[in-house]
Amino acid sequence: MLIVADENIPLLDAFFAGFGEIRRYPGRAIDAACVRDADLLLVRSVTRVDRQLLEGSKVRFVGTCTIGTDHLDLEYFAQADIHWSSAPGCNARGVVDYVLGSLLTLAELDGVELPKRVYGVVGAGEVGGRLVRVLRGLGWRVLVCDPLRAASEEGDFVSLDTLLEQCDTISLHTPLQRGGEHPTWHLLGARQLARLRPGAWLINASRGPVVDNDALRELLLDREDVHAVLDVWEGEPQVDLALADLCTLATPHIAGYSLDGKQRGTAQIYQAFCRSQGLPEQVHLADLLPSPALARLDFDASADPAWALATLCRAVYDPRRDDADFRRSLSEDPTEQRAAFDLLRKQYPVRREIEGLAVRVQGDAPQLVQAINALGAVLV
Amino acid sequence: MLIVADENIPLLDAFFAGFGEIRRYPGRAIDAACVRDADLLLVRSVTRVDRQLLEGSKVRFVGTCTIGTDHLDLEYFAQADIHWSSAPGCNARGVVDYVLGSLLTLAELDGVELPKRVYGVVGAGEVGGRLVRVLRGLGWRVLVCDPLRAASEEGDFVSLDTLLEQCDTISLHTPLQRGGEHPTWHLLGARQLARLRPGAWLINASRGPVVDNDALRELLLDREDVHAVLDVWEGEPQVDLALADLCTLATPHIAGYSLDGKQRGTAQIYQAFCRSQGLPEQVHLADLLPSPALARLDFDASADPAWALATLCRAVYDPRRDDADFRRSLSEDPTEQRAAFDLLRKQYPVRREIEGLAVRVQGDAPQLVQAINALGAVLV
Ligand SMILES: NC(=O)c1ccc[n+]([C@@H]2O[C@H](COP(=O)([O-])OP(=O)(O)OC[C@H]3O[C@@H](n4cnc5c(N)ncnc54)[C@H](O)[C@@H]3O)[C@@H](O)[C@H]2O)c1
Ligand SMILES: NC(=O)c1ccc[n+]([C@@H]2O[C@H](COP(=O)([O-])OP(=O)(O)OC[C@H]3O[C@@H](n4cnc5c(N)ncnc54)[C@H](O)[C@@H]3O)[C@@H](O)[C@H]2O)c1
Repeated sequence: MLIVADENIPLLDAFFAGFGEIRRYPGRAIDAACVRDADLLLVRSVTRVDRQLLEGSKVRFVGTCTIGTDHLDLEYFAQADIHWSSAPGCNARGVVDYVLGSLLTLAELDGVELPKRVYGVVGAGEVGGRLVRVLRGLGWRVLVCDPLRAASEEGDFVSLDTLLEQCDTISLHTPLQRGGEHPTWHLLGARQLARLRPGAWLINASRGPVVDNDALRELLLDREDVHAVLDVWEGEPQVDLALADLCTLATPHIAGYSLDGKQRGTAQIYQAFCRSQGLPEQVHLADLLPSPALARLDFDASADPAWALATLCRAVYDPRRDDADFRRSLSEDPTEQRAAFDLLRKQYPVRREIEGLAVRVQGDAPQLVQAINALGAVLV
Repeated sequence: MLIVADENIPLLDAFFAGFGEIRRYPGRAIDAACVRDADLLLVRSVTRVDRQLLEGSKVRFVGTCTIGTDHLDLEYFAQADIHWSSAPGCNARGVVDYVLGSLLTLAELDGVELPKRVYGVVGAGEVGGRLVRVLRGLGWRVLVCDPLRAASEEGDFVSLDTLLEQCDTISLHTPLQRGGEHPTWHLLGARQLARLRPGAWLINASRGPVVDNDALRELLLDREDVHAVLDVWEGEPQVDLALADLCTLATPHIAGYSLDGKQRGTAQIYQAFCRSQGLPEQVHLADLLPSPALARLDFDASADPAWALATLCRAVYDPRRDDADFRRSLSEDPTEQRAAFDLLRKQYPVRREIEGLAVRVQGDAPQLVQAINALGAVLV
């Protein structure tokens, strides 16, 4: 079997060398000539995969190590009976860790207790769904707004209006939809932002234009009580410097950038490929991921659960580092600023996930154990 | 034996109940009548201990659980053959942890590597001496200015001028001396501050007036490249709000406020008392200190030493929390501001020390082990 792959996909050999020869190309250089004899095509978002690329080739399976599929012509795949897979949710946990780290920073700044706040999660898919489970697992009060899920399943969903009215902590996790029945473009516009509760926190690590950035800037100029955390920006990599300055945390679209997430992307298309071929999965991500630098954390049973939560999350990931790196990179020169944004993403340091962190509790502490379980850390 | 003690001294029973009856009083209420029949007097800084208090009493030993002795009339003690002890250095390690935490914050903000900086420690007694050992143990370059030590011992000491010229990171650890041969009042005045190197960091956790606070405020208005970290303030508990605003970290004289340090104060006077009486020490602080909430930290041998250093130090203590609490407490109303300063010190949360933290390195990593040893953590 011949495999043609984007050279920037991690763990290619580990997962795919067993199936045949792998030919690597820069993602933008993958053309009809390269793929003609390939059985399997593995891409990232930079390669447009459509009739023009595939017609006349032997390609029967396309895998993209991304959560999005905008670069795939799925209609053509269906016609041509080409199987495919993306990697939905591969980096969702990284975003959850980012949100947790942001909450800890905001709680420290405002001197408030996280369990006393009311959380509103807008969009409860891969990211939002995981976030809701973690927050509820911690015993915190969470309201969820997801009209698509509300329409198709049982469950406690609320409207965006109710969420804005009742929640003091709002985290956005919708896709960007400009049209359709539930558009998300400027989902939080001036009108919605004006309704934020006193002392509200707004976190956006979904897509920049889900929040009207101009309206948010004006709001933050006016409302010192509100904290905004932005990982995504309208018009990114171009960033509104005045808005960034008003944000409590500002980062360059790296919320999901864990090493685990990147490698999980490859694992997911490997799994989908095995399923499509009726082959057993012989390679497992857990065996390939490097040992985390933080190998284990032990808490005494006397540890205050709130303190332990903060210590555990921050020992894995604290977004203040990325915030500092980003602020230093912000330049009045738009070309420099955009380049710096991209460079920070490209040279992102190795970051691991809270899920899977080995934790021991020395002694009997049910509340602490509950918090550790809720975070997805592993009691050893 | 009758023991009269300030009721706010921790672990009184554990250390002293074996010697006899303990009578507790509020520190300011200890008067000649209370101490008349006492053999042993244990105080804190709020009790003035002099001829007026002690004459005619049975007191043969005075212990103060403080590093300072300003409240003791040592001349009278010598005349009256009263033995005494203070607790020098009892809270020194807490200050070292504070400095380490501050360095990590500044490195993150400026995006620099700590091993590449040149450290200047001014005053190398209990605190400064420990700090020098830790920094040198980490393999970092440290210059020391301590004219009193320089005059009485061999060793590599430099002048303050040389230190200001060569160091980009300066930490002050002198006592406050208004007169004498080596006064420290305004040791860093306008002239010295003007000589700070580009990108310099200045940390003062010694005594407020060692730095001319007006001159520092003017400097910080002018020099965006300089970071100041202040734990102590000229005129504290009154704080110059404009100066606090310009400081990168600002805290209310809590650098040394570890639980270990507070309890060590009692341990040290117990030890001194045992020595003065020729008694064996039967009680040990290590058996009395509660288990630290952070029971153990394991690093993989692959861990980047700089990352491990930051993770370890911050897991024990990160001054950004105290900075946030302090900034929230700052009020335009001087009475409120002073009260808040004192309250933050009084209600200070439990904080442990890096020294003694149990750490394991999984695998072979000599550089990591060196860093952990330098910090005083215990490899298990
Ligand atoms: N910042 C990062 O690094 C990062 C990483 C991963 C994902 N993301 C982004 O986060 C968002 C969520 O990703 P995901 O993987 O969870 O996507 P998903 O498709 O799994 O989930 C999106 C959810 O939003 C819901 N939704 C759609 N329109 C809505 C509306 N108008 N109001 C409320 N809910 C609505 C959907 O029903 C769905 O449940 C996406 O925009 C994605 O691009 C960002
Ligand atoms: N912020 C806090 O919470 C906290 C905690 C503990 C100590 N302190 C303060 O820190 C300072 C140091 O405490 P310590 O216990 O190490 O005191 P120490 O007496 O053990 O050491 C002070 C050192 O400064 C040196 N020194 C004196 N004058 C000097 C000068 N002009 N230039 C340079 N060096 C000079 C002395 O020779 C001595 O070695 C004191 O001011 C103390 O009050 C603050």
